[in-house]
Amino acid sequence: MKLLEERIQKDGVVKPGNVLKVDSFLNHQMDVELFDQMGAEFRRLFADRPINKILTIEASGIGIACMAARHFQVPVVFAKKSQSINLDGESYVTKVESFTHKRVYDVIVSKKYLGPEDHVLIVDDFLANGCAVDGLIDLIQSAGATVEGVGIAVEKGFQHGGQRIRSRGIRLESLAIVESMDPETGEIVFRHS
Amino acid sequence: MKLLEERIQKDGVVKPGNVLKVDSFLNHQMDVELFDQMGAEFRRLFADRPINKILTIEASGIGIACMAARHFQVPVVFAKKSQSINLDGESYVTKVESFTHKRVYDVIVSKKYLGPEDHVLIVDDFLANGCAVDGLIDLIQSAGATVEGVGIAVEKGFQHGGQRIRSRGIRLESLAIVESMDPETGEIVFRHS
Repeated sequence: MKLLEERIQKDGVVKPGNVLKVDSFLNHQMDVELFDQMGAEFRRLFADRPINKILTIEASGIGIACMAARHFQVPVVFAKKSQSINLDGESYVTKVESFTHKRVYDVIVSKKYLGPEDHVLIVDDFLANGCAVDGLIDLIQSAGATVEGVGIAVEKGFQHGGQRIRSRGIRLESLAIVESMDPETGEIVFRHS
Repeated sequence: MKLLEERIQKDGVVKPGNVLKVDSFLNHQMDVELFDQMGAEFRRLFADRPINKILTIEASGIGIACMAARHFQVPVVFAKKSQSINLDGESYVTKVESFTHKRVYDVIVSKKYLGPEDHVLIVDDFLANGCAVDGLIDLIQSAGATVEGVGIAVEKGFQHGGQRIRSRGIRLESLAIVESMDPETGEIVFRHS
């Protein structure tokens, strides 16, 4: 998606350790107008799929998921990263390793909001090693629901999450795929199929 | 807001310990069409204020904040609940006690995304004892920005957060105020001014 690639070129900051900071518009401050256009693009890309629910994971996926959901006219469910006393106990649980926070946490979703009747689009802001998406796929499969696809804002193409998910036969659409980036020069190169 | 009150009556569940579960449409599964109408109502209520940014706190405030932001045509910033290695270190920090999780955590926002030029609307899904809103006000004041108001989906009127925030002279608009609720009968009574 040209608009997103241009924004990453303009406002993204490459840091050592394969870190791409896009927190000025994507995952701390959020450009909701951009999210709206990204949501429309996800709708176009997955128009042939019978999606009735969007699943994301807290926290930074929620904004994009909600803006996308408006275009699909479906509800969003967000998976939670730790047990809350406000959940009823009847939940699907999986474990996810965070690249950003260097730790493993439980990810849960209530059984009430994911079931065999659901055709789910997973939406998230970032895909790197793909552990969060793996966890969400695991939750969907635990519920007997169908994974219709995965929509990602920014994929780090030089890490292996995207390759692994596509090789499982799951339709994955990333609006921008970073092929390489250089913390010395700040250069960011995108992949185009 | 009649639409929200009706939805709480229909789908809200009253539990012992002053817990109102609205996770089927507000803070686990999210009815984005309802959020859109709530966002339009916040815009109507705060139409006279020069708002250029919406501030919320992860995770369940993000969806409502994004849908509201579309009506205000402003960006959203969400405060984060713990230090992330993806933040630059240059952050405002405050402490918030969670009613839901019974613990105190650090809440941070990058200094890059909140400054003296900002006129901020705080948006969150729930207001009970008001600790989260107090923390967000503290962050805004640390940045030298202006608190233009607070927009809440569901206020528990029988707890004291709303009273305390209003008594500070801050404009607080809650789309539904629960006056009382009964876990035995499930009855929910709303306050109307």
